[in-house]
Amino acid sequence: ALAAPAVAQSAPQIKWRIASSFPKSLDTLYGGAEVFAKAISEMTDGAFTAQISPAGELAPGLQAADAVARGRADACHTSSAYYLDKDPAFALGAATPFGPNARQTNAWLRSGGAEMLDELYARFDLVGLACGNTGAQMGGWFRKDVNAVGDLQGLKIRVSGLGAQVFAKLGAAPQPLGGGDVYPALEKGEIDAAEWIGPYDDQKLGLYQVAKNYYYPGWQAGGPSVQLLIGKAKWEALPARYKAIATGAAAIANETMLARYDAQNPRALRELVAAGVKLKPYPKDVMEAAYKASQEVYAELYQKSPAFKKIHEAQAAFRNEDVLWFRVAELPFDVFMAQMQSRG
Amino acid sequence: ALAAPAVAQSAPQIKWRIASSFPKSLDTLYGGAEVFAKAISEMTDGAFTAQISPAGELAPGLQAADAVARGRADACHTSSAYYLDKDPAFALGAATPFGPNARQTNAWLRSGGAEMLDELYARFDLVGLACGNTGAQMGGWFRKDVNAVGDLQGLKIRVSGLGAQVFAKLGAAPQPLGGGDVYPALEKGEIDAAEWIGPYDDQKLGLYQVAKNYYYPGWQAGGPSVQLLIGKAKWEALPARYKAIATGAAAIANETMLARYDAQNPRALRELVAAGVKLKPYPKDVMEAAYKASQEVYAELYQKSPAFKKIHEAQAAFRNEDVLWFRVAELPFDVFMAQMQSRG
Repeated sequence: ALAAPAVAQSAPQIKWRIASSFPKSLDTLYGGAEVFAKAISEMTDGAFTAQISPAGELAPGLQAADAVARGRADACHTSSAYYLDKDPAFALGAATPFGPNARQTNAWLRSGGAEMLDELYARFDLVGLACGNTGAQMGGWFRKDVNAVGDLQGLKIRVSGLGAQVFAKLGAAPQPLGGGDVYPALEKGEIDAAEWIGPYDDQKLGLYQVAKNYYYPGWQAGGPSVQLLIGKAKWEALPARYKAIATGAAAIANETMLARYDAQNPRALRELVAAGVKLKPYPKDVMEAAYKASQEVYAELYQKSPAFKKIHEAQAAFRNEDVLWFRVAELPFDVFMAQMQSRG
Repeated sequence: ALAAPAVAQSAPQIKWRIASSFPKSLDTLYGGAEVFAKAISEMTDGAFTAQISPAGELAPGLQAADAVARGRADACHTSSAYYLDKDPAFALGAATPFGPNARQTNAWLRSGGAEMLDELYARFDLVGLACGNTGAQMGGWFRKDVNAVGDLQGLKIRVSGLGAQVFAKLGAAPQPLGGGDVYPALEKGEIDAAEWIGPYDDQKLGLYQVAKNYYYPGWQAGGPSVQLLIGKAKWEALPARYKAIATGAAAIANETMLARYDAQNPRALRELVAAGVKLKPYPKDVMEAAYKASQEVYAELYQKSPAFKKIHEAQAAFRNEDVLWFRVAELPFDVFMAQMQSRG
């Protein structure tokens, strides 16, 4: 290294308040903001820090972005899919039924996707950074078998985001419930089914004790991105160096959350199966009907939201290209490894 | 934000020399170091920078780590699989036949894998940061069809890393050739086949002009990680803040390289197919024979290198758990999306 004398740099002391959409008990999701906060502090010797508030402290979890709008927080760590009432295009920052998987999402974000989303977010005085991903989720917990699409008729299912609109087209009755309300509703039979996240988080909610059938895959969320949505004025007030540091910290958090899920889900899945959970693939006709219904939902959203149309068309075109490529190299490799393992 | 008066922080001026193992023409691989260098500079307002030298300038590409050992570079951006002569365990930092895919590699690195590799690297006065990934590679270019494992008998194939040892067990005659030598050797018939990377990079080498059969998947490299190997003394001389910044910059580069491959490979694949390339899956018996041979190679390496045994056992155990989990959520989702797309 060529070392020259150190220079003195001005380091503004900035402490962000981050409103998390998640409770501390969902440690992997909540931890995304903690990883981000630790990284910005380490990268600035404590000059740029963040204090994280769990869901409910500055705002209800599903309204964390409103804490930013009201100036109670500088940023929120959240799922943009919670804000469909602002514009349905917010779903495209997080997850859409039959959308890109986690890796395709990251690739799209770094290929112009992030800029398209920031145009949307700017209308609400927000700036976004991808700050975590859960990987493909599970389909959910069902009290009774789902043998055909007809079994969804009248089914009360807890499901969030655009997945709810797809389930509605299939004849189900989607119920919006927060995490804490899912177990009691399922236990009392007020709902028949519930999707949540995946084995590690689902195990914590204890849903397997009241619904034994665990369906896969989670077509409603094939690779959901978790966002840091930052107040635009707060972002613009950062020195350029801190913006770069926040970007690097978000990249660490983005990869770390997915890595933690990939490390934690296998054991949870084993334990769930040992506890009597019945793992079942969605029947083919359910998958195909849901796919078809999702296309109808998208066609309707194209009419309602020009932003949804513009961003979804770009994202779907990118995803289609990647699916083509994954059919050649990634999938045959992964499928072969799965076959070798299933032989024991 | 709670803003307090800015403090003055001492910012040492540090300029690293990074020896790349790659030529500038392989812009996605080479670009990993450029993304890293841009990020550290932006995060320090230009106090911590890096100058990158392409393969051949400070050391031959396959010996970039030696430039670090000899003090000609502070770090190298390379594939640790180039240094099997130091210890075969170096392969585990990059890619092994039938090893983890890109996402599983990242998850393992962040679940104790990076620390295990750093123990290995420390024996050679190096510290490692994951700084890119190509995703699953292609099997390679073959002048003649491969219909059965017997067709590999005596086949002269350009292949690097542990994949070469597996091909040797299958009766082939692996040839170590640098990137620039592959096309002429294949054109003159000095070799019969060559694996390189994937559509985007392979297209640049023009291999399709002299070998039309393009086999998949690249079982020799299902998700190769690219490393920044840093001189241990240079790393330890960094202020804690710069270490955190380098870690963040590497995370950006790690994700960006994979994203670029995922964005660029689909178009290159289309163009190759339009140019008459014949895409072919490896026959099942070739895949299974290669898998079996890889297990034999690993058993032999366990005898030769305690580090290989220790790290490979840990990596394989993690990978096996992830493959189990991917069989439930990720793969069925990805396979369904591929099926929908193949219907057009």
